[in-house]
Amino acid sequence: MRDRKGVFLVFEGPEGAGKTTIAELAEKELKRRGVSVLRVREPGGTAVGEAIRAILLDKSFTMPPETEFFLFQASRAAFIQQLVRPALEDGTVVVADRFDLSTMAYQIAGRGLPERVSREAIDMAIGGEHPDGYVILTVDPDIGRRRQQKQGKKPDRIESEARRFHRRVLHGYRRFGQLLPGAHVIDTSEMTVEQVLAEVMAHLDEEFGELVGAA
Amino acid sequence: MRDRKGVFLVFEGPEGAGKTTIAELAEKELKRRGVSVLRVREPGGTAVGEAIRAILLDKSFTMPPETEFFLFQASRAAFIQQLVRPALEDGTVVVADRFDLSTMAYQIAGRGLPERVSREAIDMAIGGEHPDGYVILTVDPDIGRRRQQKQGKKPDRIESEARRFHRRVLHGYRRFGQLLPGAHVIDTSEMTVEQVLAEVMAHLDEEFGELVGAA
Repeated sequence: MRDRKGVFLVFEGPEGAGKTTIAELAEKELKRRGVSVLRVREPGGTAVGEAIRAILLDKSFTMPPETEFFLFQASRAAFIQQLVRPALEDGTVVVADRFDLSTMAYQIAGRGLPERVSREAIDMAIGGEHPDGYVILTVDPDIGRRRQQKQGKKPDRIESEARRFHRRVLHGYRRFGQLLPGAHVIDTSEMTVEQVLAEVMAHLDEEFGELVGAA
Repeated sequence: MRDRKGVFLVFEGPEGAGKTTIAELAEKELKRRGVSVLRVREPGGTAVGEAIRAILLDKSFTMPPETEFFLFQASRAAFIQQLVRPALEDGTVVVADRFDLSTMAYQIAGRGLPERVSREAIDMAIGGEHPDGYVILTVDPDIGRRRQQKQGKKPDRIESEARRFHRRVLHGYRRFGQLLPGAHVIDTSEMTVEQVLAEVMAHLDEEFGELVGAA
């Protein structure tokens, strides 16, 4: 652990794996325990980040992969410096829905951007404020797609990409996920929401103890 | 010269050195000669770039230097791929008011961003489409400021920075300008607009000959 009081937790994984649902429930459980929690989502969360988010999700813009990548890093630097770092210094548990692993999966593996320079640019945006823990939720692509359809979620510009793109993204989650020290992977394909949440909380308790209000 | 028909010319230099005035007059002179010219300016020039430009110039946003830097690169990648490259392939002379040297001067030298990774990110945004020639206009800072005041130009978010910042930028133009092969430097402090234009055109004729319609 670094010299800060809070904990920076990231939920990662492809669409339909349950990230948002689980992050929301984990937030509730942490709050029930009396832990101060901030749930965040990139891009956005800051004034300039919301303006960048609007560009990224707008289907009327055509943009090269590099533009998309740099917009995410632009938002990320503000997200870290204006939102995450102050919260961590306050002793808050920051729960993020997606972070740098998503960039590696979507932009490097999915769009084919060059790995070394892209990862260095990501690190420049993060500015040393690396997450304390990652929970990677995976899912069988067909089950993931069905879950999303059931929720009636309309796909945005990036989600509308072809199936081949999403296969590369999935491969990227596996490949780059292995590089994250201490990432906890849960295949949610055959699990209920309650089971996933129980496994997540058990993992967090073991890893972070009283910082996440473990009994 | 690369395997393309057009010429990518960049005018660089600090505020008040005469970039915009000279780029405009050079465009007119090239057109008078029957050369196809496209005058461009970053950030912007594309739909997504204009949206990014609006964020960068909006004084109501506070943003860390990294966000500013990445927004410029996001706009640059679209600028190159959607605007500059197609024009060059058409045999057009592209005249740009500022390009990568400005990023090095303002963001690396001025804001203190790390040099190596920043320059690699810039190269990723440029994607190999490096300018064929740079004309760097320099000016004594006091003379530059007086010229700007005379034009009644209102300073934007970046131009409003403190004098110390602008000294670092000036130093950056000198330092990084020396790294550009074949950059032509003109100190405009004691020159008339006509004299600067004559020197610029003589340089372009010598360097690019019939590509810029030299007699």
